[in-house]
Amino acid sequence: MKAEIITSGTELLLGEITDVNTPYIAAQLAALGIDLYYTSAVGDNLERFTGVLKQAFERSDIIFITGGLGPTQGDITRNVIAGLMGEKLAVNEELKKEITAYFAGRGVDMPENNLRQATLIPSAEALHNVSGTAPGWWVEKSGKIIVSMPGPPGEMQDMWQKQVLPRLKARSGAVILSRTLKSWGLSEAKVDQLVSPFLSSSNPTLALYARQDGINLRITAKAATQEAVQKILRAREEEIRKILGENIWGVDEMTMEGEIGRLLGKKKLNLAVAESSTGGLLAYSLTGAVESRGFFRGGVVLPVDEVSAAAALKRAAEAREKFRAHVGLAIAGDYDSKRQSAGGRAFIAVDINGATGSTDVNYPGRLTQVARRIVNHALVFLINTLK
Amino acid sequence: MKAEIITSGTELLLGEITDVNTPYIAAQLAALGIDLYYTSAVGDNLERFTGVLKQAFERSDIIFITGGLGPTQGDITRNVIAGLMGEKLAVNEELKKEITAYFAGRGVDMPENNLRQATLIPSAEALHNVSGTAPGWWVEKSGKIIVSMPGPPGEMQDMWQKQVLPRLKARSGAVILSRTLKSWGLSEAKVDQLVSPFLSSSNPTLALYARQDGINLRITAKAATQEAVQKILRAREEEIRKILGENIWGVDEMTMEGEIGRLLGKKKLNLAVAESSTGGLLAYSLTGAVESRGFFRGGVVLPVDEVSAAAALKRAAEAREKFRAHVGLAIAGDYDSKRQSAGGRAFIAVDINGATGSTDVNYPGRLTQVARRIVNHALVFLINTLK
Repeated sequence: MKAEIITSGTELLLGEITDVNTPYIAAQLAALGIDLYYTSAVGDNLERFTGVLKQAFERSDIIFITGGLGPTQGDITRNVIAGLMGEKLAVNEELKKEITAYFAGRGVDMPENNLRQATLIPSAEALHNVSGTAPGWWVEKSGKIIVSMPGPPGEMQDMWQKQVLPRLKARSGAVILSRTLKSWGLSEAKVDQLVSPFLSSSNPTLALYARQDGINLRITAKAATQEAVQKILRAREEEIRKILGENIWGVDEMTMEGEIGRLLGKKKLNLAVAESSTGGLLAYSLTGAVESRGFFRGGVVLPVDEVSAAAALKRAAEAREKFRAHVGLAIAGDYDSKRQSAGGRAFIAVDINGATGSTDVNYPGRLTQVARRIVNHALVFLINTLK
Repeated sequence: MKAEIITSGTELLLGEITDVNTPYIAAQLAALGIDLYYTSAVGDNLERFTGVLKQAFERSDIIFITGGLGPTQGDITRNVIAGLMGEKLAVNEELKKEITAYFAGRGVDMPENNLRQATLIPSAEALHNVSGTAPGWWVEKSGKIIVSMPGPPGEMQDMWQKQVLPRLKARSGAVILSRTLKSWGLSEAKVDQLVSPFLSSSNPTLALYARQDGINLRITAKAATQEAVQKILRAREEEIRKILGENIWGVDEMTMEGEIGRLLGKKKLNLAVAESSTGGLLAYSLTGAVESRGFFRGGVVLPVDEVSAAAALKRAAEAREKFRAHVGLAIAGDYDSKRQSAGGRAFIAVDINGATGSTDVNYPGRLTQVARRIVNHALVFLINTLK
């Protein structure tokens, strides 16, 4: 099956927004084993949009469109599809009820314009939108499929996960599932080398992604039943874990902060932090996680610090005492205007009720570029220490 | 002039990277007043890439291509252009010297593959690459232009600013300059309403952009001479400043942290901070700026806080004393797991050697979404207090 993606919206052509929907859909298609050959963007112009869709309909089997489903005159995706299919738009009573109810729930009358969002053509089935008023469209005609989704990434991704993905999977006649292993501490090239025999396997497939929280390894398997798929995933996961060991700190949607929250909660411990070169990013990462409400006691940022294991251990103990916490986590790193290129050197220490451990890192680059990596290193060191 | 953008690379179609080159070029073209009607992405496939470029060459006047200029067999942009133009690739001796020198400068021999990057066709002029080995191409034929640039965004933007933009401006026969005014504290709709008479002007133009540091207002003017352009820009800037007043906190490339550094430096003051709901983001924003090396004395993050002006003032004074600083800046905001939807309420206080001031904000939304806005509000409050 050959796929194609079209994003619509004049704001894209003015460079006012970056298209994040295309890479999202592209990655999802890759995981499903569906070939994507072309993507394009087009403005809110009936003639040009129709031209782009017509070409896509001729050369591809399934076309994903995002954007242009709003209530205004400028939202023309419905008209473009209807025009190309040679079908007439008509208000669907069920959709009208849904949209009217959406506004009623907010205590306001539905603006007349929104009635445009309740229209369908005979070949289109509506795709429910849980987070907005614009339903998507699933159109089948002449052996081809057009899937039209809203432009706001949150709405699009919700609709993808709940409406589009199940339909694509059902169509493939097989169960397809993924499992992501999250690694930290190894470069992408190193991970690639260590797991290279698995990268050419076709079931399960293995793909590497460099993410802010490290190199993610996504295993995707396909089989006739849920159980069979799970078995394939588990076997490959075990093999990878044997190779990467402690470098795997989490799976799937887990975050480092969330895992720390889980481990601290299990042991009924709370945490305080001290940092220098990372300038508040350690505290901010932890407090940004919902889980931190239960365990975070406080943090201190001091720009000048001695860069040594002893200094990091001292800071961890001080943070623990100052904020009356069980666990102290400290980063003692260079914070020096004269040596910006040496920003990545730091010592990390953990103090759990007086039992201590420390490690050090040295990332090349400017401090602003490596602060996130130093913080992640500290979070993974805490995870492994707590384990 | 009708423009079109093509990004090449199979990694785009696999969703492994997000295309940031297209929005960059699109925004640059918008500022130049060049119409962009189509953008597309295509994989490293000779036939499909050629098809996409052929169509672009037929319907557009100038085509910008990014990617596919590397030294490997998979980098086919040169071949695609040569094929469509019906011209032969040949090694250019000057380019060969430059690339050889690049490798010699790093103490290594040039791999044979890199010779591919020294090739040109008769219609192509090389565009110098300051940050990599791949030169770009400026191709003119049959009254149309093809501009080919490297894929890595840093290299592409350098080449755009130093090689492509000057050629485009020279071609327009006029001087085009922009000035950006940075506002904080007003919604995009409000700014839009206040400056609406200027939004329909065609010289200078005015465009609004919602950015992390507020609503940016970009004025772009066109005239025969540098002086004439500057005069138009200044006049419009003054008119806008009269309307938006203290809501304008900076211009062009300025950052809030940089402006704070400049103002503190001028008055020979240093700074300490205290925060609650923003969880370290205030300290991290300030320390992330190079300028902070001179003035940042320290910060404290305490999760539980009283949410009042008095609490913020007390914290600001405490921070000043604890870190022996001249200026204390504090944010006292809700940090409560039970009221995540009320995360945006916060009091902000500044204490300059005992002279104090405070303000408050209340952004709707979850804390993780509004922390950045609360911090920005505090930074702008400090800027205006220092002024």
